[in-house]
Amino acid sequence: MCEANVYMEKDGELEVLMENVASITPLEDRLLLVDLFGEQKRVKAELKELRLLDHKVILAPTEAPTE
Amino acid sequence: MCEANVYMEKDGELEVLMENVASITPLEDRLLLVDLFGEQKRVKAELKELRLLDHKVILAPTEAPTE
Repeated sequence: MCEANVYMEKDGELEVLMENVASITPLEDRLLLVDLFGEQKRVKAELKELRLLDHKVILAPTEAPTE
Repeated sequence: MCEANVYMEKDGELEVLMENVASITPLEDRLLLVDLFGEQKRVKAELKELRLLDHKVILAPTEAPTE
């Protein structure tokens, strides 16, 4: 299987955002992530790096976190 | 192995742009594609859809072709 784990880069560190991701589709200002089980997440982020051999997709947030 | 084939969408059809792609990295206005053999391509395109289970990455050109 060639699903990937999707990580969000925050402060130079990688946090797992979603595992076993089957597809990623940009939708307006968000990315739609869908995993093997059909679960969906929409995140305000952009692709930073796609490392297929490592099964790793790295995203970066497109806006500052609201804190 | 989990490399993918990268397709460019043109006039609603998919053309193979590069096979056995190992990584994709956005660089300014281009995407840098690197295949298993270290060959590189830089294309003016954006991600349209990533289908990991199909080993398929679909790009769309970000500017009109110069003809």
